[in-house]
Amino acid sequence: MNLNKIAIIGLGLIGGSLALAIKQTGFKGEISGIGRNEDNLIRAKEMGMIDTFSTNQAEGVHDADMIVLASPIGHFGEIVTNIKNNLKTGSIVTDVGSVKTNIVKKLDAIMPPGVSFVGAHPIAGKECSGIDASSSELFKNAKCIITPSSRSADHAIEEVIRLWKSVGAVILHMSPEEHDLIFAAVSHLPHVIAYATVNSIMEVNPNILHFGGTGLKDMSRIALSPADLWRDICAFNKDDVLKTLKIFSSSISNMTELIEKSDWSGLEKEFRRAQESRNLIESD
Amino acid sequence: MNLNKIAIIGLGLIGGSLALAIKQTGFKGEISGIGRNEDNLIRAKEMGMIDTFSTNQAEGVHDADMIVLASPIGHFGEIVTNIKNNLKTGSIVTDVGSVKTNIVKKLDAIMPPGVSFVGAHPIAGKECSGIDASSSELFKNAKCIITPSSRSADHAIEEVIRLWKSVGAVILHMSPEEHDLIFAAVSHLPHVIAYATVNSIMEVNPNILHFGGTGLKDMSRIALSPADLWRDICAFNKDDVLKTLKIFSSSISNMTELIEKSDWSGLEKEFRRAQESRNLIESD
Repeated sequence: MNLNKIAIIGLGLIGGSLALAIKQTGFKGEISGIGRNEDNLIRAKEMGMIDTFSTNQAEGVHDADMIVLASPIGHFGEIVTNIKNNLKTGSIVTDVGSVKTNIVKKLDAIMPPGVSFVGAHPIAGKECSGIDASSSELFKNAKCIITPSSRSADHAIEEVIRLWKSVGAVILHMSPEEHDLIFAAVSHLPHVIAYATVNSIMEVNPNILHFGGTGLKDMSRIALSPADLWRDICAFNKDDVLKTLKIFSSSISNMTELIEKSDWSGLEKEFRRAQESRNLIESD
Repeated sequence: MNLNKIAIIGLGLIGGSLALAIKQTGFKGEISGIGRNEDNLIRAKEMGMIDTFSTNQAEGVHDADMIVLASPIGHFGEIVTNIKNNLKTGSIVTDVGSVKTNIVKKLDAIMPPGVSFVGAHPIAGKECSGIDASSSELFKNAKCIITPSSRSADHAIEEVIRLWKSVGAVILHMSPEEHDLIFAAVSHLPHVIAYATVNSIMEVNPNILHFGGTGLKDMSRIALSPADLWRDICAFNKDDVLKTLKIFSSSISNMTELIEKSDWSGLEKEFRRAQESRNLIESD
């Protein structure tokens, strides 16, 4: 990598794991950790994740060649506003957010001249969270989607790709729009569904959730995800989340109707179609 | 146990595991395995699960003190019709089905005089299926719901409880109606939702399911369950499944509306409610 200093803003599971993974590659430059919680930053330094730290975003990014936004996406706009006057010419801003179109538009518009923004989304397990769950192996063979815009400089795109390849990720290119519809379907929609499933069971009877066994536990595990994070994801990807929710509601209405009409062969056909599709990714 | 011969009809994961677990208790009597697939039965005997076997249901239950229906629930009516003239007076019929009210009603009505039916539902992992996935440990600390009817003789209820306790299960008593609403909510509804989730993602784009990562895989694992089995469960528990589907549809409509209106604090409140509820069973 042609980088001397990388600043990571937000040292949770993804930011912390990225710092650890970069260290693991033998990176000789400086990794600067930026966050609001000083104890967390001190801990990150003790764990050998970062070399320097700051609770002041503008200070922390000083002289950085690459700045990685690893906070919840709802904070990105404010962060870039805070740091933009301290970004050096030629530096690269990238992120790890789960939504791209609105983020790319918003950040492209406020990026100072000579600084490129390149959107990225590493698909890595996020069941647990926080710095203590960090692992230098988190991105090994994980997909990382790169969503450059027409304003992203070629050297910036290449550097971001190099970074993610160096920590073991498999790079995929998508437009921000393509990314957002796909992840609305395979990630944002399932989260909304999982939250709604738990609430519905509680409405039937608030004391029965524990009867569910492994099936329900697996099925509703993503309902443990932070509510504020997923509120923001729904807000930033509103149109695509609504689009997929409409398709899902039709599927539920259709199955409800088949059950009401006692059309059991029709219902089995729907179930079987899902079973066969799901089986395609079983051994992934 | 005061039993000399136990006949198990259907040697899949549950029937096979029950046979193995009974053997493990040191049971000195005969375990008879009954199924349609002779190779499967030969294999069960070789594995030491059963002592004798038959592909003829009426023959297989001859002289049995207890008969366990461990086939898919859709076959119970036909099985009991086939065996009822061969059931000895004082024998006990029980089952392991996921639905109770309609099964209990149906089987109570065709049970010959002197034979008691006692419904049971062991809550044991069913992700994998078939005899080869069987384990004598499957029921250790698993809940087993017993749903006797007014027609179940006391000695029969006691014997069924003794059987499940002997293999390590924790016994819970419920009325068939109470059981069916609870399991519609925590099991049948989530299966319908998981099937509908997979179908919806395929409708957005048939080539994106693999982008989902661990979250989607966990969330949709139960969509791998056999379509015909879950068709029957929906058919036998139609009213309660519809009741819970209506509650779930309202929850999805409500969340959709909050997103449409950009009511992010309202959405977060719904997500947080689910997150907190789900957290209650995390360490179960």
